[in-house]
Amino acid sequence: MTQKIFNLAFLFIWASVLSQPKKQPEFISPQVNIDNTVAFKLYAPNANSVKLNSQIENGSVDMVKDESGVWSATIGPVKPDMYPYAFNVDGIQLADPKNTNIFPNEGFQNSLVEITGNTPLVHTIQNVPHGTLSYRFYTSPELGQRPVVVYTPPGYELDTKNTYPVLYLLHGTTDTEETWTKVGRANSILDNLIAQGKAKPMIIVMPYGRAYPTINKSAGSLRNWDNLQEIKKDFLNHLFPFINKNYRIKKDRNSHAISGFSGGGGTSLYIGLNNPEIFSWVFGFAPGMLPNEFDRNNALAFENPNQTNKNLNLFWIGVGKDDFTYTAIKDYFKVLDNKGIKYESYISDGGHTWMNCKLYLSIIAQKLFK
Amino acid sequence: MTQKIFNLAFLFIWASVLSQPKKQPEFISPQVNIDNTVAFKLYAPNANSVKLNSQIENGSVDMVKDESGVWSATIGPVKPDMYPYAFNVDGIQLADPKNTNIFPNEGFQNSLVEITGNTPLVHTIQNVPHGTLSYRFYTSPELGQRPVVVYTPPGYELDTKNTYPVLYLLHGTTDTEETWTKVGRANSILDNLIAQGKAKPMIIVMPYGRAYPTINKSAGSLRNWDNLQEIKKDFLNHLFPFINKNYRIKKDRNSHAISGFSGGGGTSLYIGLNNPEIFSWVFGFAPGMLPNEFDRNNALAFENPNQTNKNLNLFWIGVGKDDFTYTAIKDYFKVLDNKGIKYESYISDGGHTWMNCKLYLSIIAQKLFK
Repeated sequence: MTQKIFNLAFLFIWASVLSQPKKQPEFISPQVNIDNTVAFKLYAPNANSVKLNSQIENGSVDMVKDESGVWSATIGPVKPDMYPYAFNVDGIQLADPKNTNIFPNEGFQNSLVEITGNTPLVHTIQNVPHGTLSYRFYTSPELGQRPVVVYTPPGYELDTKNTYPVLYLLHGTTDTEETWTKVGRANSILDNLIAQGKAKPMIIVMPYGRAYPTINKSAGSLRNWDNLQEIKKDFLNHLFPFINKNYRIKKDRNSHAISGFSGGGGTSLYIGLNNPEIFSWVFGFAPGMLPNEFDRNNALAFENPNQTNKNLNLFWIGVGKDDFTYTAIKDYFKVLDNKGIKYESYISDGGHTWMNCKLYLSIIAQKLFK
Repeated sequence: MTQKIFNLAFLFIWASVLSQPKKQPEFISPQVNIDNTVAFKLYAPNANSVKLNSQIENGSVDMVKDESGVWSATIGPVKPDMYPYAFNVDGIQLADPKNTNIFPNEGFQNSLVEITGNTPLVHTIQNVPHGTLSYRFYTSPELGQRPVVVYTPPGYELDTKNTYPVLYLLHGTTDTEETWTKVGRANSILDNLIAQGKAKPMIIVMPYGRAYPTINKSAGSLRNWDNLQEIKKDFLNHLFPFINKNYRIKKDRNSHAISGFSGGGGTSLYIGLNNPEIFSWVFGFAPGMLPNEFDRNNALAFENPNQTNKNLNLFWIGVGKDDFTYTAIKDYFKVLDNKGIKYESYISDGGHTWMNCKLYLSIIAQKLFK
């Protein structure tokens, strides 16, 4: 009895300390059911309207309130994958307060829901040897203490003589250095493909892509020219030497790749094609680009197409049919065709999403360094 | 002109893709001013009431709406530190949508605001040699793929012969394996103290503390007995061997410490005092404990107080004067006094907060392994 009262007091004071609304009914959100339907719930007794905004097909719907003030919507069956979603409460977008899996982003707050299905997907966390994700800082005199996340493959720490090829992997505009792992699951994709013998063990370097504080965070897309210049300087002068000093990297250009998503895809093409002495593998995942910037950003690659073809082991661009970047990318393909620059294109279903990013990474990881 | 239209189209489609409310006025939140006042803002044109709930002293206030639908409150000057806060919109608590720094927690969503002040604090990210934070998984047959975050001190990777002492550092109830670094800044505290010669280089192991899925996540505090039993098994059988295999750890008991906050503080005392063959340094930061559990949880330590005193290099408990755990902790001190078990107590200002966790870690880090 005494213990029960004490426990209750403990929980009560606890709840106040955390400034939680009291008397909230207990529920789970999101709840993934065995038939791959998903129930989303939000406690909002005073709201007039609550919508679910998700990147799941047919997954943006009005939610319905019950007598306890909990709004809910059940959708699906949903195609197994990991999807971003948010709630819109009377015009305000918020992440799901019941869900710890947050999409790291500077521009919006989304939660993530994972529908695994019966068969593990390429990004599912499985019982296979796992690599290590290291959160590091490197120092840039201009940009300060810069965060970077580095994936090293399983066994990296124990076999201290081996050297590895490296993929630099850049996030999209408003994403952070954590987005490629927390939303893109780059680490699990590589763990799984390496375990299946489908990908070579490699190091993946995921830096933060905004040249903040030198360039203001509100300065548009990552492929903004001023940002590109600062990031290029930071990359060549600080990040690249830091990685080479601190990781056992194969130094030759056949062991260096770069890719990125969206604004970071524009950056990966810009840095990759303009630094052939470093990179022989250049990829773009729905790269953000503008036709009137093609000549400026591709100056070196366009100057001597034969040399460009010789430089590149693989030049690969993936984009979704419904992606808003596809129009400019089609124009880019035409220019490459006209100049005789070789590339592979991969046109998937879907739009400008991290579901596609996971797909593209799982494809190129199987081509890389072979 | 064309470029401008294209850019606008790009941004517009972008915004739709992200399901962001349109026409939202531009603003920054939180904005830390040079006089240490802090302005918080939220766009919520249809809300009836918006409150700021922060752990800053006098920092829970009603916010005021302007004609564009932006609610704001300016508080302070605020004592430099890093604080959790959230908005309460018509009874719903949400993190600040403009702030990327999220408090990792399974029970609520808070944002973090850092007021650095003129002088770097012990947890401020500074231009000093940085250690590495590694995100790893270890495998438990009962609990699956378990996440753990490991801090290795500056130079760990380059000097491959050195071995290090280790501190196991446990989070509070509803926190995650990321809370000790993202909210507690354990890595920066150690980076700074090591750079100043005030702390010995050490490894810090920060596991996930809930025995989920064996014990349901809603099963109360971390010091719930069933959770404690599963976590103890997991610790001894899986985590501890994983760390010893994968890190260069000094194996003797004088090089092993354990601490934790709140529910994790209860766990750190339970595991630390009942496994003297491993630990000679045992700490609790506002440890969650119940008087009627003292005998059960401290069985070995109470059995032979002289031996317990011999076993422990330091037994240390820190708690705030306003902390709701202080009452039970005072009872615990009385029991320890009666039994003649030696300990150090540190009674700080403040309550059950991560501001105090940072303080306690910065104190014990200077005592450890000396």
